[in-house]
Amino acid sequence: MPSLPTYKTPIHAHWIDFNGHLRDAYYGLILSYATDDLMDFLGMDAAYRSGTKNTLYSLELHIYYLREVKQSDELTVTAGIIGSDKKRIHAAFSMTCPRLSAPAATAEFMLLHVHQGIEPKGAAFPDDIRAKVEALKALSATHPALGAASRKIELR
Amino acid sequence: MPSLPTYKTPIHAHWIDFNGHLRDAYYGLILSYATDDLMDFLGMDAAYRSGTKNTLYSLELHIYYLREVKQSDELTVTAGIIGSDKKRIHAAFSMTCPRLSAPAATAEFMLLHVHQGIEPKGAAFPDDIRAKVEALKALSATHPALGAASRKIELR
Repeated sequence: MPSLPTYKTPIHAHWIDFNGHLRDAYYGLILSYATDDLMDFLGMDAAYRSGTKNTLYSLELHIYYLREVKQSDELTVTAGIIGSDKKRIHAAFSMTCPRLSAPAATAEFMLLHVHQGIEPKGAAFPDDIRAKVEALKALSATHPALGAASRKIELR
Repeated sequence: MPSLPTYKTPIHAHWIDFNGHLRDAYYGLILSYATDDLMDFLGMDAAYRSGTKNTLYSLELHIYYLREVKQSDELTVTAGIIGSDKKRIHAAFSMTCPRLSAPAATAEFMLLHVHQGIEPKGAAFPDDIRAKVEALKALSATHPALGAASRKIELR
């Protein structure tokens, strides 16, 4: 079975907060860099972006902080696509490290394909990129879920 | 009517991404710093944390990216509390800047009061902090909503 795309990163010292663990925001930065890698994987790399003025904008992000990450950890982010339409990608991510038997975090991004003209405007994916998005969505469906599905944040 | 607590920040050059706007992750960093300020406001400052080994951990974060932020912008984050129990705070945030007539982003954090003993463990707020949490929750209820309520991320 082909693997889902992954992004690896060490934990930088300035990412550790006063609680002695990875600051919540830097989970987000790691996810953001993993999304840059995912764009490359799907053909929306720097050459595509400069040639077409098309890119992805983030619409929504939902992170589940499941376990503390320490400076000695190295994180692997596994990316998948759990939904898509002609101009949007619903991406899911799982963050793991060898020290932990279960994910340190899971997350979902809703991403919009945008043409940066005089005003930025949502735009349909070209066919070749749409095919790559659909292929990764199909592959993602054959893998275990990348985390609990996003839900309303609330006290029950 | 008393105001809700706010946190202000300029936009640093290295926070701008290849799209020419504030990278999604740095909305999260700004929200994280605003949450540090909120902890001070509620009495969970550095002296409290070092004296009690109690702090707040982030359980969940949901961000709505509504408008692009540019390097020339200065953001104001307004914080409120929309839910709480004996050891959790459901905080809501709105990010605004003078250039924009509507929020650049809204967000919600679910935060857990944790005692960092041999193993970190959820712990009830002391009475004086619980009173501050409840007072800010009551004040928040008298203000306009800080943003769309968190929801499941999905393509409809």
